[in-house]
Amino acid sequence: MSYSLAKGTLVTMIGEAVLQDRLIKVLTKLGVSGYTIIPAQGAGSHGRRMGDIAGYNTNVEIKTIVTSDRSDQLFEDLKPLQSTHALIAFRQTVEGVFD
Amino acid sequence: MSYSLAKGTLVTMIGEAVLQDRLIKVLTKLGVSGYTIIPAQGAGSHGRRMGDIAGYNTNVEIKTIVTSDRSDQLFEDLKPLQSTHALIAFRQTVEGVFD
Amino acid sequence: MSYSLAKGTLVTMIGEAVLQDRLIKVLTKLGVSGYTIIPAQGAGSHGRRMGDIAGYNTNVEIKTIVTSDRSDQLFEDLKPLQSTHALIAFRQTVEGVFD
Repeated sequence: MSYSLAKGTLVTMIGEAVLQDRLIKVLTKLGVSGYTIIPAQGAGSHGRRMGDIAGYNTNVEIKTIVTSDRSDQLFEDLKPLQSTHALIAFRQTVEGVFD
Repeated sequence: MSYSLAKGTLVTMIGEAVLQDRLIKVLTKLGVSGYTIIPAQGAGSHGRRMGDIAGYNTNVEIKTIVTSDRSDQLFEDLKPLQSTHALIAFRQTVEGVFD
Repeated sequence: MSYSLAKGTLVTMIGEAVLQDRLIKVLTKLGVSGYTIIPAQGAGSHGRRMGDIAGYNTNVEIKTIVTSDRSDQLFEDLKPLQSTHALIAFRQTVEGVFD
């Protein structure tokens, strides 16, 4: 290939839609300017929330690609939100063109 | 870091929207209570289905994080649906906070 | 397990919604017939574009599973679009049932 691909850490956060602004604030504080937002429906194991309404919760999926170090910090920053809301987050190494 | 991240297997299923309820039944039977549903459009290599309508199919993407063993069982359980419908499924190892 | 899972390369492209038809043309030229399209909102580090409108951009996420070799070619083919538009692309190895 005539160019090299970068390595990055894709972090995916899925939580209650009401968290969207707070998640973006966490990202912005961390200096992350690029992210993707996708509306979703969810069913979670957080029983206390599933009983609130019939059917599914309105969720949001937010993805960003950051360095591995920054993803460590991001997981730390998400902890307060995770203690009070239905919010999962996971990461994977990816290779590609993103900047 | 002051806490450790869990390892899990992210399974993504993408298929015809009409499969949504059946996929959730498969997950529920397997004891999976957390999953995310995202509406999608798809074009597939399953030619017989692509000719049915002009343009794209209405698809659905359903994601869940389970143990590796449970993902084995999930792939088994999807086989009957895959023999009759356009449905792909794939898995990846992820690390994060989800429960 | 009574059957074996295939290995593939999941390529995810996220870009301005206006790129959708061009991205599909790239895929079709490459002989890729199966892909999934999900509408998204995005904020990018491509400052020149973020100033165009208030709030988020309308983005599209297109995913496909191909061979590793074909993903190399796909990244090459995306280069012209990436030089003029906000478009990221990344790949990951996945295991599953898809064809």
